Amino acid sequence: MFKVKIAGMGKAVGSLKVKSEELEEKMNVTSGWIVKATGIESRHYVDFENGENALTLGVKAAKQAIQNSGIDPEQIDCIIGANGSPLQAIPCGASLFQRELGLGDSGIPCFDVDTTCYSFRLALFVAANLIHNQVYNCILIISSDAPSPTLPKTSNEVRALFGDGAAAAIVTKSAKDEKSVLHYFKMQTYGSGANLTCVKGGGTLRHPNDPNTRMEDNLFQMDGRKVFRYAVRLLPDFFQDFFLKVVYVKVMLNIYSLIKQASME
Amino acid sequence: MFKVKIAGMGKAVGSLKVKSEELEEKMNVTSGWIVKATGIESRHYVDFENGENALTLGVKAAKQAIQNSGIDPEQIDCIIGANGSPLQAIPCGASLFQRELGLGDSGIPCFDVDTTCYSFRLALFVAANLIHNQVYNCILIISSDAPSPTLPKTSNEVRALFGDGAAAAIVTKSAKDEKSVLHYFKMQTYGSGANLTCVKGGGTLRHPNDPNTRMEDNLFQMDGRKVFRYAVRLLPDFFQDFFLKVVYVKVMLNIYSLIKQASME
Repeated sequence: MFKVKIAGMGKAVGSLKVKSEELEEKMNVTSGWIVKATGIESRHYVDFENGENALTLGVKAAKQAIQNSGIDPEQIDCIIGANGSPLQAIPCGASLFQRELGLGDSGIPCFDVDTTCYSFRLALFVAANLIHNQVYNCILIISSDAPSPTLPKTSNEVRALFGDGAAAAIVTKSAKDEKSVLHYFKMQTYGSGANLTCVKGGGTLRHPNDPNTRMEDNLFQMDGRKVFRYAVRLLPDFFQDFFLKVVYVKVMLNIYSLIKQASME
Repeated sequence: MFKVKIAGMGKAVGSLKVKSEELEEKMNVTSGWIVKATGIESRHYVDFENGENALTLGVKAAKQAIQNSGIDPEQIDCIIGANGSPLQAIPCGASLFQRELGLGDSGIPCFDVDTTCYSFRLALFVAANLIHNQVYNCILIISSDAPSPTLPKTSNEVRALFGDGAAAAIVTKSAKDEKSVLHYFKMQTYGSGANLTCVKGGGTLRHPNDPNTRMEDNLFQMDGRKVFRYAVRLLPDFFQDFFLKVVYVKVMLNIYSLIKQASME
């Protein structure tokens, strides 16, 4: 249990709004298919040609988070990048965000954490651990993804789902009179399903310059049905354990605060 | 201060040993230049054509670390990937290592941390925080990089330095009678120098399929002289602060153990 809070949040989306109908025409599928299959009526794409990308979105979200939290940018003592896909192979996204926020000479430690879509929540948990251990006091988390320029060549399944957006948060200790607490964190990874949602390129295994690397290797590939089957099989046990642990932590906390109250009366 | 220890380590290098003389011939530089400039007499490259790569090296190192630590693979409750460059864009390297270690259905949580060359030390520190907070008990860290297939097209400066290798460690709590402690951790990031050592490609900013992405964007670029100047300017203060803090922590620990001893006598 960690006494931390999100002191401020920010978000940004690509400036080009694309309705599902427009996309359906381009994808050559029947009208209404996307909303029926995904529930998504519109998404936002970056204006990549005019310099909008995952870096600019992340910076916009971060500035908003800093402003909303009311802190001074100089108070930030750690920046965690938590993108679902990399901005570039080297260095970490966090250091690029740091530079673009005008903090490039500050020395503020920067690193990325990565579990693809789960990266923001993992970053929040890692931040909570570091704050709890008094390593850092004020951590900026930025999560930004802009895959839209690659989408026209992906499968309809992928194309229907993805848009471009960023979120950022300032995480600090909760004050004594504040109730915000991170009760419990649980993550499970099933590497046996690693190929069900992947971009096989981009790194040293299928390097962009390797003539054997195919265009598809650099695109997001998803086997939605198989992912769904994994989820159906694994999620019930996961949630049962998760909620039992959360309830346990909350009950113990209540007992503790009752005892504390009683001892003070 | 975290009471943790490295319970076992493993390492692996590419199976092709390349002497600096051989490389000098290919690079068309004077004999002895590499040893004089870098001190490196030979390096190991993966046999990429025959299936050796950053993934296989990492798995080899991990198996050795598990064996050396004497633990059961089932005891591992977290895997952290800490590669300097990505294996592939999605998912994280740790989940691929998990799968190749035969733990793909175990659910063991996997994630990567990234600060390029500093990733292993960061992973060790993050692991120490998680163990200290009783989140996990036995963390496997794997750090593996195999850039050699890209090197023939890089600058001589880069080509002289890099080889392929992996390291892995099992991190656990120190037992009461064990002295191993992580005293202090300090990291600083200067994003203003992000372009001095970089691979600009591989992600969404300069996507492999984007016709504007050039071959050089996908290669490691380094401005060694400028990096050196950064280091000369920033390291003295960094180390002064670092060692002062370490000495402070050690002195406080000694005072604490003296008081404890005295109170027990």
